[in-house]
Amino acid sequence: MTGNSLGERFVVTSFGESHGREIGIVIDGCPAGLEVAASDIQRELQRRQPTGELFSTQRKEADQVEISSGMFKGHTTGAPIHLSVSNLDVRSEGYEERRHTPRPGQADLVARLKYGGHEDYRGGGRFSARVTVGFVAAGAVAKKLISTIGMEVYAHTVEIAGVHAGKAPPDEEAKAARGNVLSCADSQAAEKMTEAIADAKKRGDTLGGVVEVVATGVPVGLGEPVFDNLDGDLGKAFFSIPSVKAVEMGAGFQSAKMRGSEYNDPLMVREGKVHSPTNNAGGITGGLSNGQPIVCRIALRPPSSIAIRQTTVNIQTMSEQPLSIKGRFDACVVPRAIPIVEAMMATVLADHSLRAGLIGPVLSNS
Amino acid sequence: MTGNSLGERFVVTSFGESHGREIGIVIDGCPAGLEVAASDIQRELQRRQPTGELFSTQRKEADQVEISSGMFKGHTTGAPIHLSVSNLDVRSEGYEERRHTPRPGQADLVARLKYGGHEDYRGGGRFSARVTVGFVAAGAVAKKLISTIGMEVYAHTVEIAGVHAGKAPPDEEAKAARGNVLSCADSQAAEKMTEAIADAKKRGDTLGGVVEVVATGVPVGLGEPVFDNLDGDLGKAFFSIPSVKAVEMGAGFQSAKMRGSEYNDPLMVREGKVHSPTNNAGGITGGLSNGQPIVCRIALRPPSSIAIRQTTVNIQTMSEQPLSIKGRFDACVVPRAIPIVEAMMATVLADHSLRAGLIGPVLSNS
Amino acid sequence: MTGNSLGERFVVTSFGESHGREIGIVIDGCPAGLEVAASDIQRELQRRQPTGELFSTQRKEADQVEISSGMFKGHTTGAPIHLSVSNLDVRSEGYEERRHTPRPGQADLVARLKYGGHEDYRGGGRFSARVTVGFVAAGAVAKKLISTIGMEVYAHTVEIAGVHAGKAPPDEEAKAARGNVLSCADSQAAEKMTEAIADAKKRGDTLGGVVEVVATGVPVGLGEPVFDNLDGDLGKAFFSIPSVKAVEMGAGFQSAKMRGSEYNDPLMVREGKVHSPTNNAGGITGGLSNGQPIVCRIALRPPSSIAIRQTTVNIQTMSEQPLSIKGRFDACVVPRAIPIVEAMMATVLADHSLRAGLIGPVLSNS
Amino acid sequence: MTGNSLGERFVVTSFGESHGREIGIVIDGCPAGLEVAASDIQRELQRRQPTGELFSTQRKEADQVEISSGMFKGHTTGAPIHLSVSNLDVRSEGYEERRHTPRPGQADLVARLKYGGHEDYRGGGRFSARVTVGFVAAGAVAKKLISTIGMEVYAHTVEIAGVHAGKAPPDEEAKAARGNVLSCADSQAAEKMTEAIADAKKRGDTLGGVVEVVATGVPVGLGEPVFDNLDGDLGKAFFSIPSVKAVEMGAGFQSAKMRGSEYNDPLMVREGKVHSPTNNAGGITGGLSNGQPIVCRIALRPPSSIAIRQTTVNIQTMSEQPLSIKGRFDACVVPRAIPIVEAMMATVLADHSLRAGLIGPVLSNS
Repeated sequence: MTGNSLGERFVVTSFGESHGREIGIVIDGCPAGLEVAASDIQRELQRRQPTGELFSTQRKEADQVEISSGMFKGHTTGAPIHLSVSNLDVRSEGYEERRHTPRPGQADLVARLKYGGHEDYRGGGRFSARVTVGFVAAGAVAKKLISTIGMEVYAHTVEIAGVHAGKAPPDEEAKAARGNVLSCADSQAAEKMTEAIADAKKRGDTLGGVVEVVATGVPVGLGEPVFDNLDGDLGKAFFSIPSVKAVEMGAGFQSAKMRGSEYNDPLMVREGKVHSPTNNAGGITGGLSNGQPIVCRIALRPPSSIAIRQTTVNIQTMSEQPLSIKGRFDACVVPRAIPIVEAMMATVLADHSLRAGLIGPVLSNS
Repeated sequence: MTGNSLGERFVVTSFGESHGREIGIVIDGCPAGLEVAASDIQRELQRRQPTGELFSTQRKEADQVEISSGMFKGHTTGAPIHLSVSNLDVRSEGYEERRHTPRPGQADLVARLKYGGHEDYRGGGRFSARVTVGFVAAGAVAKKLISTIGMEVYAHTVEIAGVHAGKAPPDEEAKAARGNVLSCADSQAAEKMTEAIADAKKRGDTLGGVVEVVATGVPVGLGEPVFDNLDGDLGKAFFSIPSVKAVEMGAGFQSAKMRGSEYNDPLMVREGKVHSPTNNAGGITGGLSNGQPIVCRIALRPPSSIAIRQTTVNIQTMSEQPLSIKGRFDACVVPRAIPIVEAMMATVLADHSLRAGLIGPVLSNS
Repeated sequence: MTGNSLGERFVVTSFGESHGREIGIVIDGCPAGLEVAASDIQRELQRRQPTGELFSTQRKEADQVEISSGMFKGHTTGAPIHLSVSNLDVRSEGYEERRHTPRPGQADLVARLKYGGHEDYRGGGRFSARVTVGFVAAGAVAKKLISTIGMEVYAHTVEIAGVHAGKAPPDEEAKAARGNVLSCADSQAAEKMTEAIADAKKRGDTLGGVVEVVATGVPVGLGEPVFDNLDGDLGKAFFSIPSVKAVEMGAGFQSAKMRGSEYNDPLMVREGKVHSPTNNAGGITGGLSNGQPIVCRIALRPPSSIAIRQTTVNIQTMSEQPLSIKGRFDACVVPRAIPIVEAMMATVLADHSLRAGLIGPVLSNS
Repeated sequence: MTGNSLGERFVVTSFGESHGREIGIVIDGCPAGLEVAASDIQRELQRRQPTGELFSTQRKEADQVEISSGMFKGHTTGAPIHLSVSNLDVRSEGYEERRHTPRPGQADLVARLKYGGHEDYRGGGRFSARVTVGFVAAGAVAKKLISTIGMEVYAHTVEIAGVHAGKAPPDEEAKAARGNVLSCADSQAAEKMTEAIADAKKRGDTLGGVVEVVATGVPVGLGEPVFDNLDGDLGKAFFSIPSVKAVEMGAGFQSAKMRGSEYNDPLMVREGKVHSPTNNAGGITGGLSNGQPIVCRIALRPPSSIAIRQTTVNIQTMSEQPLSIKGRFDACVVPRAIPIVEAMMATVLADHSLRAGLIGPVLSNS
């Protein structure tokens, strides 16, 4: 495959550009008999569009999903599922002029060099975060699929602008994922984060942050040694989200500072079952799910498009020149990333559930 | 593919278990005409076996590589390259007794559940770090391959036991990768790290650490949007190394704390070429190499096998029992990880160089 | 991948059902910089719809292609190319009643069993020959791509209803491919074939036939040993066309009757180059293209939908019952198959040209 | 993947050359818990070496299989299974002299051009039929695997030198597959075939033939629409066998001459089940297995190496010169092809049984 497909048994193939006619995804391998409504997908797409004053300057898209194949009478058929969304709020003027002054931090220059100048450069083209519309749509189907064996996924905000959210009980974290604009379970921290975003926005600057994503109800044994292990496939999927610069599983970087006697999650018995009181492994041992919740943290860098003046190069004249980007951009990428991160995790878990034979090629009709 | 192959154009397929007859790898897709000597591979395998008092209790293997196909007259032929190493220093006694008391932190229990008890459990079987012998052998060929277009890879130690190495010039870091037991460019820090390892060893405990790996001479445009981007494929490859719990690119987790105006690497002109004075992106923009050095940091958790007493479950009687592991284990995984991390990076870069058409299917005969 | 994608470097992913909203294909891996017009694709789609009295009862579709991604300013961008066609002339009534009396020779029954009754059964759903709309659209792009290195593909009819076309010069065969309704270079044979089709149509019966497809201008060395050899990949692609029951390369079944001294194409010198006066190998030696024209013959069984009364089983009552199919069906599948067979060959040749590095990831801008 | 792997869930990766140290295969994806003995594999390898006067001049190899990973206590473990055989009876002298006079019909010339002269040319190198040792070894495991769900595979000779075997009952055909040197169920035809082979051998010439391969006990629904259909994957696998020039399913080329009313296999009821009295479809409808036996016929061209004088080109001097090949070659490829054809069919059926979820990732321990 050549870069626009992900997965082995639940395979998603992405297509579309920021300013093209539509953007979408084809899912191949979803078992027949899964009940999916357009509203299941629509709900997730809506979560990708944060509302409120902080996000008032963004591109506005209805993002109405169209399911054009692979569904019949409200169920999947086993055939490829084609999901797409039209690009409507497209303003392509201005790109021609900016063509020769690539934006720092964006793919403008590398894309131009890689594709010999043939790339669609309008609005970031294929490199725009708009491709994640397809990720989220596929993730909505994946979530339905893994829920048939009891798995659920939620993400929440744990850090923005250096403000860390305090640890909350899983229930509250899960609720936060859907409950507030920042998807942060610590309301005090959320308040400070909101202030920081408002401040950055006012200054024409941007902020990154850290998202934690958790899967519960995970069966033992997802993942394949030695190369398609679960952490590897999750890591790859997360890095496909624009702006992601780091991924950690369980104790992550902290585990590098621990001694074995601290790190190892003891095996104990609770209610007749093997149980670990800690989860430093983040639910993954030897590349396989171990039955505990899977916990990953993902670092997102700040969006590159800033109004603050920066330096770039006019690649025709090869002279440096200042650049101040005007437009409809996010001051902080985190809120929008929440459902995307969830979608990628659900997609990987769906794929590995099928690989492990935990979900069959046909779901029962009931 | 089903989990034991990695790559699209430079494809490695791993085989072998810790206590089986041999361990190795098949490389498919290496262009014809690459000059490779067995000594090129042997040298890397030797680096995987740290020497000195700190590592004196480890399993001792000659790890003599055998090239049994794909090479002719000192050059690759374009056919699959089969590389293997015999397992000689195998002591399989004791595994039968320990069968029902899985080691915390190891894959013992999950493997048993995943494979219905059919797994080869001797010495960790397929989950042993011994599989990385094959990774390193393939990486040696990959290094030769990418060197034909000027790319080089080195890794060095930046943290052990909470001791951080000070930043050194790239030259010194690269030298450290091959120069001392800990592959650490900061000799003062290395001394403290050594003490910490000696101390942990004495106590029957283990230590993790952080490795930084750098690729230089990287052409622009390696990586494919949107799913096979370079960071995603590197991340996946690194997570396939046992003990890796986190991966970051460039500024990584630090980037989550930065503002866009701080993070963006400015585009400037130096000697008539586009140049960035900083490298927060770690050489990867929009999932593609941008021509700067690629810089990743990898966190390794401490080895799970500790002499210190821990708690496990006898899964036959379902009762908790103490466990104190005796054997030939590493007190710190970092020194051994250095050439493995390099190998995985070289393997991914070789794959993407072929995908991008920067290396053709036949190298010139000169 | 899970069955709806084909290829390694020029990857096509099919989607859509006979009576769904649209049918189409996503091409991933087409190099940037290829000039493609919608009319290039439209022309091929038109060839898939034979006209004239013999075909007057068929479903009528405009089959207007929509290119919704991967193209910009008349050139490919290197991003996925999304091609689709709306299904307009859809008459889905009647399928509910026929649901329990599967048509002999069709996939009705096996699809129902495979997908647990969830399949879209209207008009054959995913098993309809209508999916070949996507094949032909992708093939049109593939033809443009391989023409950049001088390759061309044509198919012509060599047998219908036991009537064999006499051997004609390549030029006439190539012209026939586009010149007449039956794409047959032997006008006398064509006349007899036409009569046979008219006769079958009148009787409510159907006919199969044999198509020969030829690629010219083929470079040496396309194909990979040992499993992705060129004949294997061509064979697989041809068998993906509904109704294909046999594929032969060069002398094919006839070669089984030959002695080595007859079969071997001698190597001789002509105009300073190696040349063979015969082409029993059909342009493929050891799984690789040898520089001669590639010649394959494909046998198509007669369409299954016949007005003549046949026997089927009501699978609810498990009783036999007669079946006489009314509807809009082809009396002979061959004319429509011509551009489909060409498309599959072009798609495989495009894929292998990219694999062999004969076409780079970016075409020159001229 | 790059040409030396086949399959999606039961993946075989081939390695080794004719005159290298060893030849073999790695199987990835075989479920854990399958009982396999070395003798299961050895028996099949022996069938690949026909004995008797007709074959007395061939290379003699013990072909003792070594299983070096993926097996433990007599069962598969779920890890890659590494199977290899040493090359012992190697006579590499003479190849250097013959280097510049490629043999007509062989891959000598195309391989040299494809690999820039780096290929291992001794004994045909990677293009030698000796690679089928690995195919047969993998096929032996595949046969064991599919037998767990009741599938069996047998091949028999239906044509050599224009002599056709009369149709025999399936039992006799299956017995013939293992019973006599030619694997032909028609003893009278076999006698004539034997004479023809003896005659060809005496003259220094060679013969092709046709093999029929049958799978019984096939469940409904193997194969994926639209590209990985069962006929396509079988066809691809058969074409990977050296010398195969044509493949037909069921009525094959004959179906092109039939009317729909003749071709369609009626659906009837027998003993309460759907049943077809004919099998023109060869067990495959719409690309899926339909529950009837799968029947394919494979045409093999005569071996290229003949003692009879032929014409080739000295590619250094670019002058034509006569060539008469001395050596240890088969006069007829068919007897040796029987177990190879079976192996490829079993391998494809194993792969699709896993894809369809009919065999799980772990077999019960009983």
